[in-house]
Amino acid sequence: MTSPALQIALAHHHAWTSKDLETAMTYIADDVVLEAPAGTLTGIQAYRDFLGPFAGQFLIRADLIAAFGDERTAMLMYDAETIPAKSAPAAEYVTVRDGKIVHNRFIFDRLPFEEFRRRQTAADRQ
Amino acid sequence: MTSPALQIALAHHHAWTSKDLETAMTYIADDVVLEAPAGTLTGIQAYRDFLGPFAGQFLIRADLIAAFGDERTAMLMYDAETIPAKSAPAAEYVTVRDGKIVHNRFIFDRLPFEEFRRRQTAADRQ
Repeated sequence: MTSPALQIALAHHHAWTSKDLETAMTYIADDVVLEAPAGTLTGIQAYRDFLGPFAGQFLIRADLIAAFGDERTAMLMYDAETIPAKSAPAAEYVTVRDGKIVHNRFIFDRLPFEEFRRRQTAADRQ
Repeated sequence: MTSPALQIALAHHHAWTSKDLETAMTYIADDVVLEAPAGTLTGIQAYRDFLGPFAGQFLIRADLIAAFGDERTAMLMYDAETIPAKSAPAAEYVTVRDGKIVHNRFIFDRLPFEEFRRRQTAADRQ
């Protein structure tokens, strides 16, 4: 059984985790809503501003752990090796409309990133 | 299509989020492995020690966001209202064997809990 929503979610995932942000963004709707740990972001530009630095600067590699989907929604879990955190697992639950992601509920552990930020700030002060 | 693994995952979820830890633990295998943000816990007692305080002391309510499963695995996403954090979403990817959860990859944002702990520590000092 093929899930159309999962196909879109995976195409987006494989593109950004390969650091191909341009292709990744073609799967994002203009009026996308991203519910991330720090709050809700609205619109494709905000989505790009969120994903771009993570994919471009922090991400080393990502490994897919699980992927499920139905007609309209899909859910991914993956582990990401990043510069701030050796293991930064995340989960996304996306809603797809007309081949684009219109909503993403995004979960990850902010703590290692916050600790990295604090170390950077402390290092800058020295 | 019914997923046997999802049925077990949901039965476990509904029990612990109703604060019925005894019923919840009947769905956990003795040799369960829990991969949580802080590290890997092994065995049913460690699982109980992890889940018990969260369900008993911190949890106010949980709302299921998404649930998928196949024969052997299932994935849940839910939001939890807790005493430390108004919104503490989490995702679990479980593997089921003989009607019990043998593995759980568990993702949540530790940051609000860490901030709560810091506030508590600061308050204790005053």
